[in-house]
This record gives sequence, structure tokens and C-alpha cells, in this order.
Amino acid sequence: MSAADFRAWSAAQLARVEQALSDWVPQGAPAGLGEAMRYAVLDGGKRLRPLLALAAADAVDGHAEAALRAACAAELIHAYSLVHDDMPCMDNDVLRRGKPTVHVQYGEARALLAGDALQALAFELLTPSADRVPAAMQGDLCRALAQAAGANGMAGGQAIDLASVGKPLTEPELRAMHALKTGALLQGSVRMGAACAARPLPGGVRQALDDYGAAIGLAFQVVDDMLDVTADAAQLGKTPGKDAAADKPTYVSLLGLESSRALADQLCAQAHAALDASGLARVHYLRALADMVVHRKS
Amino acid sequence: MSAADFRAWSAAQLARVEQALSDWVPQGAPAGLGEAMRYAVLDGGKRLRPLLALAAADAVDGHAEAALRAACAAELIHAYSLVHDDMPCMDNDVLRRGKPTVHVQYGEARALLAGDALQALAFELLTPSADRVPAAMQGDLCRALAQAAGANGMAGGQAIDLASVGKPLTEPELRAMHALKTGALLQGSVRMGAACAARPLPGGVRQALDDYGAAIGLAFQVVDDMLDVTADAAQLGKTPGKDAAADKPTYVSLLGLESSRALADQLCAQAHAALDASGLARVHYLRALADMVVHRKS
Repeated sequence: MSAADFRAWSAAQLARVEQALSDWVPQGAPAGLGEAMRYAVLDGGKRLRPLLALAAADAVDGHAEAALRAACAAELIHAYSLVHDDMPCMDNDVLRRGKPTVHVQYGEARALLAGDALQALAFELLTPSADRVPAAMQGDLCRALAQAAGANGMAGGQAIDLASVGKPLTEPELRAMHALKTGALLQGSVRMGAACAARPLPGGVRQALDDYGAAIGLAFQVVDDMLDVTADAAQLGKTPGKDAAADKPTYVSLLGLESSRALADQLCAQAHAALDASGLARVHYLRALADMVVHRKS
Repeated sequence: MSAADFRAWSAAQLARVEQALSDWVPQGAPAGLGEAMRYAVLDGGKRLRPLLALAAADAVDGHAEAALRAACAAELIHAYSLVHDDMPCMDNDVLRRGKPTVHVQYGEARALLAGDALQALAFELLTPSADRVPAAMQGDLCRALAQAAGANGMAGGQAIDLASVGKPLTEPELRAMHALKTGALLQGSVRMGAACAARPLPGGVRQALDDYGAAIGLAFQVVDDMLDVTADAAQLGKTPGKDAAADKPTYVSLLGLESSRALADQLCAQAHAALDASGLARVHYLRALADMVVHRKS
């Protein structure tokens, strides 16, 4: 597959996701809540999690509407986590995707509720009537998302992150934190895409896709830490240098830039190897996404 | 059914729920997150939502493990909403169920994350392996819970509540707010219990149970407003008189105590009438719960 083929696929999927998010995140929710939810979700973000879900669904010839819903649900969880993470009691950030953060724009109370409502909406998207998404698939999708988002996934990783400020972490500790904080939802996005298969996948295929998800999940964070040092605010759409200023442990502070780059490349190779091991024929989008994660500039 | 029969059933169910919550809310979640989650959930609360789910499941001869999971999931959503609602940017309350609120005990950041993780855990409880809860039932349960919790349910009601401080509301506006803020999850608990039926219920039965849930949902709030005026902190386990102090519209401020009492009784009669209309034979626990909601002292 050529780079142009991937760009065309990616652009088409992003357009579908953007339209679906705009259709599904409610305009009309009470008392300005819908406005804050849409502000948090629409017109921004790389949509990496949706692309992972859609690419994984493509690899297993998955149910089309289920895949689109899984893609959007993963993005809603990501978006809610950013809203809460930016709040004064957490990272206290004022700039996100080049715009004022949700609590700056709408106040803390509405930001808190918008995040809460976005999490609920993610599960609502996964559970339409059974003529839209097969009933048995809905439970699998909700399970994968709930595990990725919860105490032993993203929320747990954020709790470790909070508790780690100013503490020296070893590389295994840092890896364990990121495996939850960002890795769980990235891996969960791949898992949800795989759950859109018409028939249960063999255990070996599921494991290979999980390995792929784990590798790119960690690679994403290593690159994120590098960009926090090397990129500027205009590129990032958020405040750079925050991690160092907050005395947070990062891959760069632990390994240095060069070794971080080498680790990212090694994880990319691991992701490719996992796809080879899956035995699936159509993994070219997943492969291209791994490259995109590691070579991104923002 | 005698009052003693209901007390015995209720005590047995509460013991099951308490044990299940203790088993399912993780001790071991990272960085003290599990501790905060358990603090928010265990050893407190009337467990009205679990009882409603279990009584509704009993009425439709529902799947036993699904019903217990639905009961606990509803309680987790309720518990997370209290954690977030008590935070300084919302109601800024320091006392709940006779104990310091979660953010007072563990700090705001961990309270925020504990609430987030409790919401995810609710959906995780509803989606165990298919040999525990039938796969097709899992989607129905998640749908009912997500709708009850989200922007057009509980979170939306809280947004209206926030926007209403210091504003004169009409009785229909107050009713619409409470139908979402507390009514949606109470009604959703009944709906989840009903979704544990082995076969889909006839539309008329579903509607009757929804009518029951709507009536007791509103009755609960009317009585809550009355108790805010008439009970003391020891009875309530939270700070009384907060609504009046916060200049929040209540049934008591709108209708006065006597008319509020009359409205609660009328809603209780509506709930009973809905149960009669359901045609279900085993509705005695639901009936007793309606009475309990209206005559409670805390």
C-alpha cells in the first residue's frame, strides 16, 4: 500500500468520524451542557483512537456501523479525560488543541459535568437498537471500553501520574504508568475494532492485536514526551514544556532524547512484528498507523 | 405481604449488595484510587437504586446475577455523582453519609478520578463474560444505564440544577429538572431490573414499570426537599438546609410543606396504580419500596 493510499483512507475515515461525532454529541442537552460537550469533542484532535478502531475493524472485516460507533466512543472517552485532566485540581491547563480549555471557556462545574456526560455517551453510542449493532457485540464493545477507561486502565494511570509528580521513577515504573494512562485506551481502541468481527477471533489473533496495541500505546507516549521538549505550542496546540515544569518524570528525563528515539523505533518494529504474527491479511492500515504514531510531529 | 416480609427481603438484598460492592470495587487499584473508590461506595447510603433494580428483577423473574450486577452498577453511578457533586466547583459540601466527603478525605484530584473510575466500573460490572450474564442482555443493561446517567439523564439534570441557582423556577420546570437529576437513575434502576427478564417484556409492561419509576423518582425528590427543611444533620448524614442557603429552588420553597406532602402522597398512589396496570403478579416489593420512598425519615 502506498503512502497516498493510506492518506486517502485516513482522510475518508476522519471525515466519517467527524460527521458521526457531530451527529451524536447532542446539540440539545440541557443548560449548555451539550455546547460544552461539543466544544470538547469537535474540531480538534488527531483522532488516533478512532483510526485505530477503524483500522482494526478493517483488518477483521468487522461490522461497519459497530466500528464507527466504537471509533467515536473511544474518542469520547479520550475527550472527557482531557477535559477533566485540564481542570485546576489536576493539570490546571488553559490551552488545548489551540483553544481555551473547557473549564476556562465554560467554568469548572460545567466542565466536570461535560466530562461525566461524555463518558456516559460513549457507552450509549455502543448500545443502539439491536438492528444497528448485533446485541451480542454490544456487550463485548462496552467491556473493552470500560476496562480501558477504568481504575485498571486510563483512570488508574492518571492516579499514578498524579502520585508521581516530583518522584524519581524507574523506567519499568514509568512504563507501567503509561501502559495504563494512555496505553490502555489506545489498546482498547484496537480491541474494540477487533470486537466488530462477525465471528469470535482465534485467541492467537486477539493476542497479536493486543501486542500491537500495547507497542503503539507505549510508542505514542515516548513520542509525546519527546515532542513536549522539541515542539512549540503552535505545533502542539497545547502548552509545551509542561511536564518538565511540573517536575513530572518523562522518557526524555529518564533516557534522554536519543535513547527515547531509539525506543520509539524499537516499539514500532514490535508493532509491525505483532501484525505479522497475527496472520491477518489486511493489516496495512494498522501498519501505517504505527508508523504515523512514531513519526508524528504534533 | 407483611411489613416484616419486606424488611426481611430488604435486609437480605442489602447484605448481598453490600458484599457484592465490596467484592467488585477494587482494593488494588493504583495509587490509592481503589481506596477512594471504596470510601465513596461502601458503608453508607440507603441503597435505594439497588433495591429498585432487584425488586423489578424479582417482578419479572429476572436473571439473578444480571440483577445483582445491575443493582450494583446503578449504585456506582449514584456514588460517583455524589463524589463529583460534593466537589468545591459544584456544591462544595464537606459532609456526606456522616463522613467527610471524598475530596476532603483524599484531595480533589483523586476525588475527580475516583468518580470517573466508578462510572467506568459500573459498565464493567454489566459486561462480565457471557457465561455469567447472557450476551444479549448486557447491551440492554448498558443502554439503560448510559441513558440514565448521561446528558439527557442525571448529568443533564445536574447542569439544569447548576444553572437554576437563584432563579425562580415554575413547578413544571422544577419537575423537569428533577426528572433528570434524580428521576432518571431511579427510573433507570427499575428499567435495568426489568431488562433482566429472560424474554423481552411486552411494551405495556415496560411502560407501566417506566411510569412507576417516574412517579417514585419524583416522589423521592419531593421528600428529599422536605427532609432538607425538617430533618437534622444526624438524621440525614449530610448538611441540612443547604438548598435554602444556596438559594436553590425546591418543592418546599415553591409549594410549601403541606402541599409537598400531598404531592408525595399523590405520586405514591400513581406508582401503585402503575404497578396495578402492569399486570405483573409479583410487584409487592416494588409496592413496598414506593411506600418506603414516601415515608422515609432520612
